[in-house]
Amino acid sequence: MEKLKGNLLYGQSGGPTSVINASAYGVIERAKKSDQINDIYIMKHGIQGALNEDFYDAKKQSKSNIELLKHTPGSAFGSIRYKLSDYEDDDSDYKRLLEVFKKYNIRYFLYNGGNDSMDTCAKIANYMESLDYDIRVIGIPKTIDNDLPYTDHTPGYGSAAKYIANTVAEIAYDTMAYPIGKVTIVEIMGRHAGWLTAASALANVNGFGPDLIYLPEKPFSLTKFKEEVKTIYSKNKKCLIAVSEGIVNELGEFIFSSSNTMDDFGHSQLGGVAAKLAELITRELKIATRSVELSSSQRAASHFQSLTDVNEAIKVGEKAVELALNNQNNLMVIIKRESNNPYSVNYEGYSLSAIANQEKKMPDRMINKDCNGVTDEFIKYAQPLINGQNKPKFKKGIQLFAKMK
Amino acid sequence: MEKLKGNLLYGQSGGPTSVINASAYGVIERAKKSDQINDIYIMKHGIQGALNEDFYDAKKQSKSNIELLKHTPGSAFGSIRYKLSDYEDDDSDYKRLLEVFKKYNIRYFLYNGGNDSMDTCAKIANYMESLDYDIRVIGIPKTIDNDLPYTDHTPGYGSAAKYIANTVAEIAYDTMAYPIGKVTIVEIMGRHAGWLTAASALANVNGFGPDLIYLPEKPFSLTKFKEEVKTIYSKNKKCLIAVSEGIVNELGEFIFSSSNTMDDFGHSQLGGVAAKLAELITRELKIATRSVELSSSQRAASHFQSLTDVNEAIKVGEKAVELALNNQNNLMVIIKRESNNPYSVNYEGYSLSAIANQEKKMPDRMINKDCNGVTDEFIKYAQPLINGQNKPKFKKGIQLFAKMK
Repeated sequence: MEKLKGNLLYGQSGGPTSVINASAYGVIERAKKSDQINDIYIMKHGIQGALNEDFYDAKKQSKSNIELLKHTPGSAFGSIRYKLSDYEDDDSDYKRLLEVFKKYNIRYFLYNGGNDSMDTCAKIANYMESLDYDIRVIGIPKTIDNDLPYTDHTPGYGSAAKYIANTVAEIAYDTMAYPIGKVTIVEIMGRHAGWLTAASALANVNGFGPDLIYLPEKPFSLTKFKEEVKTIYSKNKKCLIAVSEGIVNELGEFIFSSSNTMDDFGHSQLGGVAAKLAELITRELKIATRSVELSSSQRAASHFQSLTDVNEAIKVGEKAVELALNNQNNLMVIIKRESNNPYSVNYEGYSLSAIANQEKKMPDRMINKDCNGVTDEFIKYAQPLINGQNKPKFKKGIQLFAKMK
Repeated sequence: MEKLKGNLLYGQSGGPTSVINASAYGVIERAKKSDQINDIYIMKHGIQGALNEDFYDAKKQSKSNIELLKHTPGSAFGSIRYKLSDYEDDDSDYKRLLEVFKKYNIRYFLYNGGNDSMDTCAKIANYMESLDYDIRVIGIPKTIDNDLPYTDHTPGYGSAAKYIANTVAEIAYDTMAYPIGKVTIVEIMGRHAGWLTAASALANVNGFGPDLIYLPEKPFSLTKFKEEVKTIYSKNKKCLIAVSEGIVNELGEFIFSSSNTMDDFGHSQLGGVAAKLAELITRELKIATRSVELSSSQRAASHFQSLTDVNEAIKVGEKAVELALNNQNNLMVIIKRESNNPYSVNYEGYSLSAIANQEKKMPDRMINKDCNGVTDEFIKYAQPLINGQNKPKFKKGIQLFAKMK
């Protein structure tokens, strides 16, 4: 097969992670080395930038800004939540994309995102293939939620897990200050999958962690919850709970879903679970409580990235370029764990259409039988992902972030 | 004057900071070097431990645990919120303390805390003096709130400020991900003083920070607030706000004081200001919002301590021992800033009774004239306090904390 030559287009989509820009770094630096790729365009705000011909030119960015991508939270090039229609229903966006691809001679299309973005990616690959437009489309995974299937884990998860586990360890130590403690409830992100909330259990490795962990995979019962809190509190005079924002009842309905507002993808908006559970405990068990919502720092805490996660995010970006250069198409890069001790992984491609719109939940073998904690198997799985510290760059005590031009 | 010989008693009181245990380290290591001090006792849960003869023996702690004090959040020896009566009204606690001091030959009493703890310290010093019990009583300041008078700043503030400024910088960058942003409101601790909330402005040093900052020193008007948010949002399509939990109206009443519950010192319990302001903006300006409460990590984020703060916390502990050894009594250690460029400080003693129960608020010259931000003078004051990174010790990706025996 002849080597495909042309330009590369990369974009970011969905909620940021603290390492999505490290994948951008991997893409840019790897693409620069290839004689098949000339220009490296980056969409402003993902697919919206492609539709509007609104691009950054990666080769015009300063070396120091490119380096800073490894330490920059958010989406350095802008993100978007935009769901493409099926092209059988409405092909206007697709026609426009093809027009832009032809105009800029885009032969490599790399899209960095989660479940919804992989759907976008698969649709574009399929449409271009149906019209015989010669292009390589590769998805690059990222999500703090760790809920993409077929990959051992997702870039972004390790740093979020490290932040959550250490913050919970700090809160656990903090709650021991007074002779009579409180019931402390920490709310952790994760709409349908418990990976992030489960990561709080890693804190226990050092002796200070949550007593109870509630995940969205298992139905949450308020009666059982009160009993479990009461038992621990009467023994220890304190109780630390990690709870997922997405816990559901026996019917699969969100507990305390605060409203029926939906975001652009039709997901209902959650939050406030910890505060409401705390209210319940104070009212019914007459115990002092504190609720803590870890909030957006879980995806944005660039000051506390896992070095393992950063390095893997870079590799995943590089691998996407390599797959594309090797005439692979319609794939997402996945991480395969080769060994746990010493920890080592490989990178491969996996069919985008198999991945798109799928959610990987925690398997039963990682959740304890009382459904209020995790098993050793989860600890063995998650622990290697939080090792190592990526050191931020500082100016006047504040982290330096990339500023694209 | 003859050299006083005997044992030392140290304790921690009030809300923890991420560096209070670094002061304990300073006290212990300095006291070990003195031939005037034999045993080093540490109260479990502050004054409660003294009343109950419940002590740790510092010399029996392992070297590695003592070293870890520099990296340990919370109160490694336990804290307490316990207000001593005036001894003219009820001297039972004081009589008991004298009994314990005599039994253990306590000749050095060092108490580490904030405003309320300095009150406790002053009362004990005065009582012991009134009965001619020969003892040196020295207060060691700590509070993330930075609201103790006569000291340039308090140990604990620098680390909290560093955490707040960098977290706000991360949130600021994160909010730029989407083409149309939200109004993001970050709630920051500080009951009566704006020092912590003001620290969010340090983020701007690197180009990403809050648009509006509201402090408890100036009356907060909902009407003015809505106008200011509207103006910024219509210009930038996003707006980032840092707001103190303690903002008050023209009458000095807390805005949205959620309930009338009081803590053990009669302070009313705050929280939820950001969420309520966000609700207001969504309802009245029809703009999407997000609220973030930085919560207990402000005082407990040992993973992100300011090295400047840690080193000063150690020095303040050492200085307390030195003042006591030099026959000083009834003083609190204060930090005096000698120069800003290069930053340098000295340590002195200052009358405890002048400090007790006083709150140092932000002066007008550090607040901008629109009362929605800070001046350069604040930045010059606060910036040097957040420099340098104290590196945590890790095991399996989780911070190691001291465990006292």
